[in-house]
Amino acid sequence: MPELRKDPVLGRWIIISKERSKRPTDFIVQKSAVAGGFCPLCPGNESTTPPEVFAFRDKNARVEDTPGWQVRVVPNKYPALVIEGNLDKEGEGLYDKMNGIGAHEVIIESPTHDEEFAHLTLSQMAHVFQAFRNRIIDLRQDKRFQYVMIFKNHGRAAGASLEHSHSQLIALPILPRMIVSELDGAKSYYRYKERCIFCDIVKQEIKDEVRVVCQNDDYLTITPFAPRTPFEMWVLPKRHSSSFREQDDRSLTALAEVFSESLRRLDSCIPNVPYNFVLHTKPLRSESLDYFHWHFEIVPKLTSIAGFEWGSGFYINPMPPEEAASYLRDSI
Amino acid sequence: MPELRKDPVLGRWIIISKERSKRPTDFIVQKSAVAGGFCPLCPGNESTTPPEVFAFRDKNARVEDTPGWQVRVVPNKYPALVIEGNLDKEGEGLYDKMNGIGAHEVIIESPTHDEEFAHLTLSQMAHVFQAFRNRIIDLRQDKRFQYVMIFKNHGRAAGASLEHSHSQLIALPILPRMIVSELDGAKSYYRYKERCIFCDIVKQEIKDEVRVVCQNDDYLTITPFAPRTPFEMWVLPKRHSSSFREQDDRSLTALAEVFSESLRRLDSCIPNVPYNFVLHTKPLRSESLDYFHWHFEIVPKLTSIAGFEWGSGFYINPMPPEEAASYLRDSI
Repeated sequence: MPELRKDPVLGRWIIISKERSKRPTDFIVQKSAVAGGFCPLCPGNESTTPPEVFAFRDKNARVEDTPGWQVRVVPNKYPALVIEGNLDKEGEGLYDKMNGIGAHEVIIESPTHDEEFAHLTLSQMAHVFQAFRNRIIDLRQDKRFQYVMIFKNHGRAAGASLEHSHSQLIALPILPRMIVSELDGAKSYYRYKERCIFCDIVKQEIKDEVRVVCQNDDYLTITPFAPRTPFEMWVLPKRHSSSFREQDDRSLTALAEVFSESLRRLDSCIPNVPYNFVLHTKPLRSESLDYFHWHFEIVPKLTSIAGFEWGSGFYINPMPPEEAASYLRDSI
Repeated sequence: MPELRKDPVLGRWIIISKERSKRPTDFIVQKSAVAGGFCPLCPGNESTTPPEVFAFRDKNARVEDTPGWQVRVVPNKYPALVIEGNLDKEGEGLYDKMNGIGAHEVIIESPTHDEEFAHLTLSQMAHVFQAFRNRIIDLRQDKRFQYVMIFKNHGRAAGASLEHSHSQLIALPILPRMIVSELDGAKSYYRYKERCIFCDIVKQEIKDEVRVVCQNDDYLTITPFAPRTPFEMWVLPKRHSSSFREQDDRSLTALAEVFSESLRRLDSCIPNVPYNFVLHTKPLRSESLDYFHWHFEIVPKLTSIAGFEWGSGFYINPMPPEEAASYLRDSI
């Protein structure tokens, strides 16, 4: 019997289709051919990107836009939004629009061309998370922005257009629908229970154990109760916090530990799997929120099952999250 | 300057990235190789599908599950939901779930294997829409169901797993999130304006003309103000109606006229483009709704731009809908 499950935050229903259940080996992914050729993200080619806005540099390499960096953040050469101008909000009959003001940046996660994010050293991955945080802190000073969206597309099927490992950041003058819906759902729960729904999820998942992938003292990775895709994972801080921006270096190192282990377990289950991750955190202009809890969502992109969802806006997932978690726990 | 546009119903913001603007020829699609081999949807192979639940048959071919049909509806052989059983709604800690009860059917749109939906005769396409309507009327009698979702995946990239032209129907014991959000958005507008937002959209679009693709006395196709993808189209009835189920044969013939023209214009702009369409109509258990307006959404699946949206839940569209509508108007 298939099962319908409701995402407790969004109210989104998912079909868990056990009859169609598959093993990880049913999702084998061909590694896309190495593109080769010129890479604008490699050390030595700094002049081919817009000037850097942030970098972690070696002590003896203090000159911007030259080699010697470990993590480098540059504006996107083909930005979806532009940094200069006014919002000029206006109506057009019943419609609303504004200028596409925003920042669109690329976080280059390693100087080494073919080093994958999942295989960065812990201190290197912690540096990437610190770069995320530092860019949010900086962009928050621009009062036009409401939200900083940070995400990664790994693998061509997940939308990566450059092979060199990188993530992206978009500072927006509006709140994306995804966050509005999540805040609304979490607020409804809080009104009724006076507790953060994510804190309750963390507590229940640690007790139930069946959907836990891995954890340390500070962070927990689970396969969520109503996942959109096989092997979807959420990485949550165990203690309540609504703001990624407020995490200190120690916390981000602990995050790297659990994040890295989660991705390596995923890669071990489905070698070369394309995936996206997205940071969910509170809006830039909110105070700390009692009802919302920052976290990462990691969503594998398994194209063999993508069509239905695109067409219908409704997810059918052939892999119960309890089974996925079990495969992930046993994988390394 | 890129532009941010808000979908007036859902509140979803879209980036229209004019700098990245493209012409239709930039989206050329390779037709996927003909699969060949055995087709379970072809006449003569009726015994390889589950028994039909509905068909339009020639006068001299009255025997079910034999050739002589023009449109044939059968249960999906690998259903995502099962028809028999109880819902057994229950909690699991803070989570909610129920049994995956529902109907999952395949609407075979033509007896001819390689006839594409866009090129059906008008009367044949009207028969397909009548089959949609008749199945909704029938399934509505099952009190367990709240919604009937009808959609089509055309082309492999859009999720079609069989070449023979068909659409799908899923009867659900819950309301999909897509419809809940749309009803909520439309209700908010109605509360404020005491008018249906879709009626206002129809009126404004007919007056503005710039986003009109084609129309007749009863139906209008537009590229919506905040489209998710290049060449997204909505087909709306001009007169208020919340229920597809209540359309008579005459209305569905008028729908076929505009729908067919819309798809042929799309196909002429981007030959072999994969697309999805989804019927949006009122929930089965609602009375007629003053604030909601049934319609179809047609979403081309242009894979070259799919990754970003998947990762971020945020759409960047390189094609302003005014330009798309202009290309579509000029195409045939």
